[in-house]
Amino acid sequence: MSELAQQVDTYRQRVDTYLAQTFNQRPGLSQSLNAAMTYGSMQGGKRIRPFLVYATADLFNIPLCDCDALAAAVECIHAYSLIHDDLPAMDDDDLRRGQPTCHIAFDEATAILAGDALQTLAFELLSQVDSPFNAHQQIAMIRTLADASGQNGMCGGQALDLAAEDQQVTVAELERIHAGKTGALIRAAVKLGALSHTEISPEQLTHLDQFASAIGLAFQVQDDILDIISDTETLGKPQGSDQANNKSTYPSLLGLDGAQQKAQQLYQESLQALTKLDYNTELLEQFAHYIIERKK
Amino acid sequence: MSELAQQVDTYRQRVDTYLAQTFNQRPGLSQSLNAAMTYGSMQGGKRIRPFLVYATADLFNIPLCDCDALAAAVECIHAYSLIHDDLPAMDDDDLRRGQPTCHIAFDEATAILAGDALQTLAFELLSQVDSPFNAHQQIAMIRTLADASGQNGMCGGQALDLAAEDQQVTVAELERIHAGKTGALIRAAVKLGALSHTEISPEQLTHLDQFASAIGLAFQVQDDILDIISDTETLGKPQGSDQANNKSTYPSLLGLDGAQQKAQQLYQESLQALTKLDYNTELLEQFAHYIIERKK
Repeated sequence: MSELAQQVDTYRQRVDTYLAQTFNQRPGLSQSLNAAMTYGSMQGGKRIRPFLVYATADLFNIPLCDCDALAAAVECIHAYSLIHDDLPAMDDDDLRRGQPTCHIAFDEATAILAGDALQTLAFELLSQVDSPFNAHQQIAMIRTLADASGQNGMCGGQALDLAAEDQQVTVAELERIHAGKTGALIRAAVKLGALSHTEISPEQLTHLDQFASAIGLAFQVQDDILDIISDTETLGKPQGSDQANNKSTYPSLLGLDGAQQKAQQLYQESLQALTKLDYNTELLEQFAHYIIERKK
Repeated sequence: MSELAQQVDTYRQRVDTYLAQTFNQRPGLSQSLNAAMTYGSMQGGKRIRPFLVYATADLFNIPLCDCDALAAAVECIHAYSLIHDDLPAMDDDDLRRGQPTCHIAFDEATAILAGDALQTLAFELLSQVDSPFNAHQQIAMIRTLADASGQNGMCGGQALDLAAEDQQVTVAELERIHAGKTGALIRAAVKLGALSHTEISPEQLTHLDQFASAIGLAFQVQDDILDIISDTETLGKPQGSDQANNKSTYPSLLGLDGAQQKAQQLYQESLQALTKLDYNTELLEQFAHYIIERKK
């Protein structure tokens, strides 16, 4: 395994363990709600956002255990958005990563509530009494996650995406959709990691945010490319589904070559941003490379 | 108008103005999402939770303008829960307060997202940069709202309520459902108001919480009573709908007299808690009286 693959695996295991503990230690009022929250957030996946929290905090030698709640919080937001996205009124998906989606495994009402309660859990995790961070850091972290999740971020991007279905959009509009829908939470993950460092400067935050913005968009461009060039088996979802759903994508707007150039350009931008930081950013560089080279 | 009715009106107008400003000043990425969020949270109503925030803070002479964001935050959580409750997969209601519910006025996907983004907005409002409260107060407020909203509070109670449909439950189980579903947020409203006072003591918090728990449950008991004794026109929803839906209620478990005694007993408990506070609690006393005397 490469150094990156090992780190991805280590961080994934960390956040999975912490999430499992969290659901165990907080049974809540309803067993079935807790089960649906657990199910919806423990269905596997690369845990890219937790990775970014840990890897960014690690630049500043922050103990990883201090970052578990941050990594789990950002993953709770991501998980809730997937549960609600899969609902019949949204994308109406029965399967995710080969398993029944939350509303299929439970029922629609429980899936709606599980998503709702996972969002709340994210803010519970960031406002815990025994946080290793000072109150100012905690508030900044909560503000970061809330701004990234709401109508200026993820929810806003999803609403734009809904409105764009069956519509021809411009490249600028497509960027705006993805900056909200997926970009905002990826940027929040990096910023949460950065804010765990009490001495973080506004300049460092800016460079890290430029890195995160670039890889966030590159992630989406590569997703669109894979939807065309990969096969269904590797992808784990039907190849060509964007075209079938009549969705505007980077390849449909820029051509396949143009989309691949765009991914390369974003990759270079992300590296550029990292060079401005006086820290060992090797892992983040490898991660940026993985984003545009991944096959699924 | 009585003093109480005047204050209810003043506070309602305050929070409505603040909410309207908030939606105006934060257009977000998607116009239709913002419109659905505005629609879903500005459909009228008595604004009981904001009232409790303001009235509690007013005990300690906190400037009302300092509490606008707190009142709006707790109302955003309440509004999001109503939007999601009304969805076809939940209660499947087409009308609320005589107007089309959010998913009827917009569509289901937009209503789901509007609820999601309203929950986020609550935490945005509590973590604002220009908060009049110190960071420790802000964190305590966020923790209060998150604990009340998630699987240990509102969402948990709703999940229990779903599971109890068509089931015979005990009085203890019914209390557990309502303590989560409606009680938790009413307690959070009072606690948010109390936390706005920097010098609040643990004892004062306890007395206020006893008051809030009692009126929260009294509110539900009276709701159940009204469902039997009131008429459809006064109620604004079909009279007898609990029985028709085969729901366990206080009158069905205790009889009408028993339920009325229960409401009285909770009212006395709420007054008892207030007498332990060395403040002018007249408005809160009047409010408790209104809770069990109201006709709709």
